[in-house]
Amino acid sequence: MSRFWSAITQQLTPYVPGEQPRHQRLVKLNTNESPFDPSPAVMRAIATTTGDMLRRYPDPESVALREAIADRFDLRAEQVFVGNGSDEVLAHAFQGLLKHAAPILFPDITYSFYPVWAQLYGVEFKTVPLRADFSVDVADYRRDNGGIILPNPNAPTGVPLALAEVRRLLEGNRDSVVVIDEAYVDFGGESAAALVPEFDNLLVVHTLSKSRALAGLRVGYALGQEPLIEGLGRIKNSFNSYPLDVLAQRAALASLEDEAWFRDCCAQVIDSREFLREGLEQLGFEVLPSAANFLFASHPEREAGALFSALREQGIIVRYFNKPRIDQHLRISIGTREDCQALLAALEAML
Amino acid sequence: MSRFWSAITQQLTPYVPGEQPRHQRLVKLNTNESPFDPSPAVMRAIATTTGDMLRRYPDPESVALREAIADRFDLRAEQVFVGNGSDEVLAHAFQGLLKHAAPILFPDITYSFYPVWAQLYGVEFKTVPLRADFSVDVADYRRDNGGIILPNPNAPTGVPLALAEVRRLLEGNRDSVVVIDEAYVDFGGESAAALVPEFDNLLVVHTLSKSRALAGLRVGYALGQEPLIEGLGRIKNSFNSYPLDVLAQRAALASLEDEAWFRDCCAQVIDSREFLREGLEQLGFEVLPSAANFLFASHPEREAGALFSALREQGIIVRYFNKPRIDQHLRISIGTREDCQALLAALEAML
Repeated sequence: MSRFWSAITQQLTPYVPGEQPRHQRLVKLNTNESPFDPSPAVMRAIATTTGDMLRRYPDPESVALREAIADRFDLRAEQVFVGNGSDEVLAHAFQGLLKHAAPILFPDITYSFYPVWAQLYGVEFKTVPLRADFSVDVADYRRDNGGIILPNPNAPTGVPLALAEVRRLLEGNRDSVVVIDEAYVDFGGESAAALVPEFDNLLVVHTLSKSRALAGLRVGYALGQEPLIEGLGRIKNSFNSYPLDVLAQRAALASLEDEAWFRDCCAQVIDSREFLREGLEQLGFEVLPSAANFLFASHPEREAGALFSALREQGIIVRYFNKPRIDQHLRISIGTREDCQALLAALEAML
Repeated sequence: MSRFWSAITQQLTPYVPGEQPRHQRLVKLNTNESPFDPSPAVMRAIATTTGDMLRRYPDPESVALREAIADRFDLRAEQVFVGNGSDEVLAHAFQGLLKHAAPILFPDITYSFYPVWAQLYGVEFKTVPLRADFSVDVADYRRDNGGIILPNPNAPTGVPLALAEVRRLLEGNRDSVVVIDEAYVDFGGESAAALVPEFDNLLVVHTLSKSRALAGLRVGYALGQEPLIEGLGRIKNSFNSYPLDVLAQRAALASLEDEAWFRDCCAQVIDSREFLREGLEQLGFEVLPSAANFLFASHPEREAGALFSALREQGIIVRYFNKPRIDQHLRISIGTREDCQALLAALEAML
């Protein structure tokens, strides 16, 4: 505490990201990173960046990158917003599109950054309980609200929501912005991007961190009709004119152009996920349905917190959330096949 | 306008950065970029970044980079905050350290992003007129305030404030945060970094965009005592856990380690600045004293706006601000010696 802190600085409870260990002899299955290196095209784009490009400011509007993203989704560049990771995009959405008189709604079990952004910008919120099976019932979101945000697939559960249900959610909430946070959609979920031309209140948020193996690059984007994108642009241009550096813009563009790499990697992650699911179930775990690059699993006879600690001692890091309803679950990122095998072997020895 | 925009989104007047032309056959003297490529060490750090580094999240606390910055200023890493360009650092300072009951103070002629951040975060402000010669009189800042921010050297004038005056400013304002924005200090200014151990209310902000030739990389930092840095960290960790990508952290670190390159480039810019000053004065311009990598010049017989347009037509871009007190000045970045000569030749032909 300091008398120099503003009131909001004093009140904040900052977000705590998953551990990034500095010494790397670990099986790291805690932050949903890709087990694969990014596309070789990404490495070429980085290697061919010149000093002359670096000494100048980057394109503040990231036009080339936004055009490539737009092409991918049959949209126009004016319907695409890019930011320094999808976290920055989401933060701007909280400040620019979700702060209204009525409270916003999000699931009781969801990405734990949402309440932090709400606090940072003074956005009132109410949480909506997931069903007992951790699925979203969109009928529960039919009430006055200043906006709705939910991940699909949800985090940290991995449970997907069908596109027909997302459509119902949008149809039932024409007067407020609905943000669908699709960080994990490429691993088997159904994207709402196709609904953008139809719904003026829809914002779809993606990241290159997971399915593009670029967590280290910090690039995320949002898709929506022009007024929503323009609103985000007003916040961005009042915060930081140049959120994406030259390397990030070039590397992200190169990644988007390598469709073959992208499809192959997503398919391999999905394969390994189903391999890990089978292995966990054979060990007696109950595993939620997942369309993400992680599994959410609990064991009826073992404390999740104790399993987490025991794995940690063996150099295997998964994620454990000591929170209501989920304190008996582990969230396990899908690593390489060898990582999955190492985890299963360690668990087998413990059980 | 959109009914989906929050109230603040509707009220904002975003910042407008200097033009970044997409076609590059221009003499570009409008955004204070370095005329030199960054250190070769920077290029090596980028070229040796691996796919394995990119697929993982970066160090959210940028520890190695903060330690290197701390070393440079005889501080500790806990006294260093880094951000996605000094603009992000300054934005966090507005929200985290400058928002209090009383209005903050800054010069009437200064970095034009300050009133934008004030608006974004609802920070009241009063502007304090510079003297007629565009210098700061620190006695004018002896009044109740919620904080003070000023660039040293000032922008867009380039006029420096002596360290003894900065000390007087700090001594006269013990109860509020004083932010000294030293984006241009390496070109002949006196840094207040040495005062950090003495004043608990001082925050010094630097960028790698100018003197490190890394505008394209987006790295800035703040120096201050732990409580101020911790306050900025609380905002950062409630906004975006990973503001600096892997490449930015590695390249910035490499740049800080190449002191010889740094000194040589700064010396060359200063040389060219004095060359340009002489040339402009010979053409009848009045040129303000500058300790920055730009000059602020007016011609007693020629409209600055007309000169700006005429130069633009010849492919030479400088910066013109159509604002009270400075609408007869041009801000001219220090380019290569050839750029300076091209500018002088073009002006000579016009006058």
